[in-house]
Amino acid sequence: MVRFDKVQQTVFELITIGYEILDGRILNTNAKWLAEKITSMGGRVVRMVTVGDVVDEIASVIKDALKRKVNWIITTGGLGPTYDDLTLEGVAKALKRKLVLNKTAYEMIKERYRMLAEKGVVESPEITPSRLKMAMLPRGAKPLRNRVGSAPGVLLRYGKTWIACLPGVPAELYSIFEEELKPVIEKSLKKVYRVDKTIYVKRVAESSIAPRIAEIVKKYDGIYLKSHPKTIEDGVSKIEFQISSIANKIETAIAKINSVAADLKKIVLEMGGEIEREE
Amino acid sequence: MVRFDKVQQTVFELITIGYEILDGRILNTNAKWLAEKITSMGGRVVRMVTVGDVVDEIASVIKDALKRKVNWIITTGGLGPTYDDLTLEGVAKALKRKLVLNKTAYEMIKERYRMLAEKGVVESPEITPSRLKMAMLPRGAKPLRNRVGSAPGVLLRYGKTWIACLPGVPAELYSIFEEELKPVIEKSLKKVYRVDKTIYVKRVAESSIAPRIAEIVKKYDGIYLKSHPKTIEDGVSKIEFQISSIANKIETAIAKINSVAADLKKIVLEMGGEIEREE
Repeated sequence: MVRFDKVQQTVFELITIGYEILDGRILNTNAKWLAEKITSMGGRVVRMVTVGDVVDEIASVIKDALKRKVNWIITTGGLGPTYDDLTLEGVAKALKRKLVLNKTAYEMIKERYRMLAEKGVVESPEITPSRLKMAMLPRGAKPLRNRVGSAPGVLLRYGKTWIACLPGVPAELYSIFEEELKPVIEKSLKKVYRVDKTIYVKRVAESSIAPRIAEIVKKYDGIYLKSHPKTIEDGVSKIEFQISSIANKIETAIAKINSVAADLKKIVLEMGGEIEREE
Repeated sequence: MVRFDKVQQTVFELITIGYEILDGRILNTNAKWLAEKITSMGGRVVRMVTVGDVVDEIASVIKDALKRKVNWIITTGGLGPTYDDLTLEGVAKALKRKLVLNKTAYEMIKERYRMLAEKGVVESPEITPSRLKMAMLPRGAKPLRNRVGSAPGVLLRYGKTWIACLPGVPAELYSIFEEELKPVIEKSLKKVYRVDKTIYVKRVAESSIAPRIAEIVKKYDGIYLKSHPKTIEDGVSKIEFQISSIANKIETAIAKINSVAADLKKIVLEMGGEIEREE
């Protein structure tokens, strides 16, 4: 149960593009990685969507996210040189902007292939149509330098929403996020502090403690308290309680989480349960 | 690049419910597991969405999926006894149906808690309000027996769309899917056969081979051919090509994938690349 409502947070939507996620071939580790980063920075991811490599699908999820007036849309995947890398086409369609040759992106790509040709990784540094495609960005966009791969990331603003497009190759995504995108996100963040705690309890059934948990949540603003029941082993029920506290001052966040944890432990003991450990 | 367009497939949308995914705390392994199962059965996942434990958010993604006229909507998470398990409330809101006490679900839950009380896992077999909540299903829904945990799965039909709601605990999800849901899905599937192959190549740049790949794809219907560039190591570029072939007859699917693989390998060798292995 969440009571983040009264705490102002910067809101993110993550869009993953690629059939390799939809067919269950790979786990969407990119969305998890980004969500973890954003959460730790004080932002809040409200939705994750995965669609295939189809221009209309990509455009449609971007438009939907814009309608929800999120502060940030971050896409991953579909920026490469192949014909099914369609993210920027989808973004351009959603924003009704043209794809235009971006000179900075062009220079980045030229430099990259010159280096790859020198190393013998590619046969020629020539900017073929496939390579040129990676420099065609929606009008008004800024390329984000990719130190690990060829396709630059893309950053643009539409109304009050920032849109960032990152490659799907994890090493490239991490590098562009850390070196290029993170400073922009940090500047945009409404200042909040978040503290987390996990309490492991046993010998209490989730269904028995549920109404008492609801009572705790009603007492506080800006807390998150969720029970994760673990599968019962040897007849002993175990629950992991995740508590997060968020506030505009760090002291408030800490005081609140300690108070919530104390309330929770009191109830567990009252019900005859045991506290296994806390982290 | 995909050319599945002319092959009729049963289309699925997967909805994951829970803040623990949105804050990056855990990987969405449930969606991957379901996608892999569905793909191997011949179905096609077209979208995955994750939202938090909020009734309006859940209702909104269900309504959006219904508008897209998918054949199946499968949700995971939010079926338990706690106050923030809101999936069925969200589904009911989306369909404008009331939540009503389902007698079969009630009997399942009663039986479950009788067994848990006997084993001493819960202090009493009493059907508390939290436990009763798991038997309140949208009108017209059918419970799916949960042999591993307490909350039954839920199956219902809305127009031409099947909606299934499964628990978020992986062991419970797997069990209900395999024993209860799979037979229903199988009956609903348009008959298609799918064959997969992965070819690992090196010393060819993705941007160089891209236009040739597009040529191959143009030649065939019902194939999927995607290049996954691996990060360049020691100056050697590596690409993993995923090929899938889909057809109404198994022989056609096999003949097609062999022909695509032969075309691809020929081009790689022509460009001076090497075939590392195929699977």
